[in-house]
Amino acid sequence: MTQAMRLLGLDWGTTSLRAYLFGARGHVLDSRQGPWGIMALPAPAAEGGFDQALAQLCGDWLRQAPGLPVVAAGMVGSAQGWREAPYLECPAKPAALAAGLATVRARDGFTVHIVPGMMVPGALPDVMRGEETQIAGALACRPELETRAGVRMILPGTHSKWVRAEHGIITGFTTCMTGEVYAALMRHTILGRLMPEGRDAGAVDWAAFEKGLAVASDERNGGLLTTIFSARTLGLTHKLAPAQLPDYLSGLLIGNEIAAMQRMHPGASDAPILLIGAEGLVQRYAKALPVFGLAGAVLDGATEAGLWRIADMAGIITS
Amino acid sequence: MTQAMRLLGLDWGTTSLRAYLFGARGHVLDSRQGPWGIMALPAPAAEGGFDQALAQLCGDWLRQAPGLPVVAAGMVGSAQGWREAPYLECPAKPAALAAGLATVRARDGFTVHIVPGMMVPGALPDVMRGEETQIAGALACRPELETRAGVRMILPGTHSKWVRAEHGIITGFTTCMTGEVYAALMRHTILGRLMPEGRDAGAVDWAAFEKGLAVASDERNGGLLTTIFSARTLGLTHKLAPAQLPDYLSGLLIGNEIAAMQRMHPGASDAPILLIGAEGLVQRYAKALPVFGLAGAVLDGATEAGLWRIADMAGIITS
Repeated sequence: MTQAMRLLGLDWGTTSLRAYLFGARGHVLDSRQGPWGIMALPAPAAEGGFDQALAQLCGDWLRQAPGLPVVAAGMVGSAQGWREAPYLECPAKPAALAAGLATVRARDGFTVHIVPGMMVPGALPDVMRGEETQIAGALACRPELETRAGVRMILPGTHSKWVRAEHGIITGFTTCMTGEVYAALMRHTILGRLMPEGRDAGAVDWAAFEKGLAVASDERNGGLLTTIFSARTLGLTHKLAPAQLPDYLSGLLIGNEIAAMQRMHPGASDAPILLIGAEGLVQRYAKALPVFGLAGAVLDGATEAGLWRIADMAGIITS
Repeated sequence: MTQAMRLLGLDWGTTSLRAYLFGARGHVLDSRQGPWGIMALPAPAAEGGFDQALAQLCGDWLRQAPGLPVVAAGMVGSAQGWREAPYLECPAKPAALAAGLATVRARDGFTVHIVPGMMVPGALPDVMRGEETQIAGALACRPELETRAGVRMILPGTHSKWVRAEHGIITGFTTCMTGEVYAALMRHTILGRLMPEGRDAGAVDWAAFEKGLAVASDERNGGLLTTIFSARTLGLTHKLAPAQLPDYLSGLLIGNEIAAMQRMHPGASDAPILLIGAEGLVQRYAKALPVFGLAGAVLDGATEAGLWRIADMAGIITS
């Protein structure tokens, strides 16, 4: 490693652990991913499972750079994580995330700084862990957003997050369980029976997807509990081929999500909605938003930018 | 058996087989239930699985009354059933169901008459099998409905059916996958994790159920993909106890179903909606409908009445 190592950043979720090695000014020198999510550690937590996972993925880096600061975001800070980092309530600035870091002492003596999740309080509370770091990163990547009102972001995934920011303050967010509901419907209801097994996740049938969006965009078709049944009847009546049904259902669900979020928070801004997440998924949202009169703009690198920014604001990066 | 046997009626679904033995004028002499749904036959269909199931449940009746006519409704008439009975299209009268009976010759020489399912044609088709017989039965139980417009029925279940009838004609219906989605969310998503295992299905927490209805009735809370996440966050924040979460989620889903159906087909009648189905489930709908400005009236015995009526109209009952 010819460049100085300045920070180890961890995106540590339920099912995977991703590590970013940063050099000067937040430049990513290297990154790695392992399967050791907090529910899939190499040993039980009480027997040093977190230490072992970190050593297996990043042990060489930590030996090469003694004293390298470590910051981690995601479910690692939950009650089931390495150390609980209590939720920070909205509204809050990214600086409050830096001020709220929890710490845990690793087996080898170094400190791991854990980013708090965020919560929307109220009668129906909402929570997130990990996405707050991506949001801080997005605001850092686009400094002009720090002065703007009505900033909206979507972080699609197992639990999609729709985020609102005003003048650099994260004012609120809403979770949609779209990805998890899709998986449960495909694998554990009658809808999966007409669908082919082991579909190629890479090849999207855009026509089927857009048909799903169109059905979801018309309220006269009834709500989600009804329209999803058409992912069966259109197969039974041979109006869609079995291979089209998964993307049709995906369009129904993503369309339903967008329509509901638009009704809940009618757009306060004409600016495009920032789309942050895995490439295949943000492509679907970028296609879907215009059907509902909205526009999306894809933003990459938010996680890395957020880990660096929070560590920087917390003053834990050695210069 | 002191009374003459006039008809054997079968309600033969995916997971169970229920048999009704009728005497004169449709009086139910006896009934039985077995686990041999069409997906759980005692032997493969090609090896006489349907014959074996029927013999195991009703063999003694069939021996006591040679020539007893047999009528069957439900998935037994699907492509995966004993003999496919093609869908009858809406609008249609119950008499058309009787005219559309399919037949299959049983191993022992007698004929089984199978009731066709029904279909709503169109861009988003809908289908049902078994419920058409309950609907015919409901119309027979309440003859005054045969002359009325704007009759509505709900048949709650794995796939709830909302049915519309005009002057004795079944004009249309809409499926909501409420029951199946509930089961998939409970068993196969993060929502089940905070819930106790093996909850007592008999004891409904009505306060939690009604809280779910209230949340579902207010569109400002976002759509179903969002509100279901509150079945996690209200648990995380200790606003609901673990034991309350299943009935809260049930209220959210049933409330969402009713709200969506009401938007799709605003009530054309002030008469109560007939509720037909399992006792525990129709109780939930009877509680839920008033929250949405509607009223329900429970109707029992629709399946038996429908099997008898269809057989009677088809002229297969020996006098």
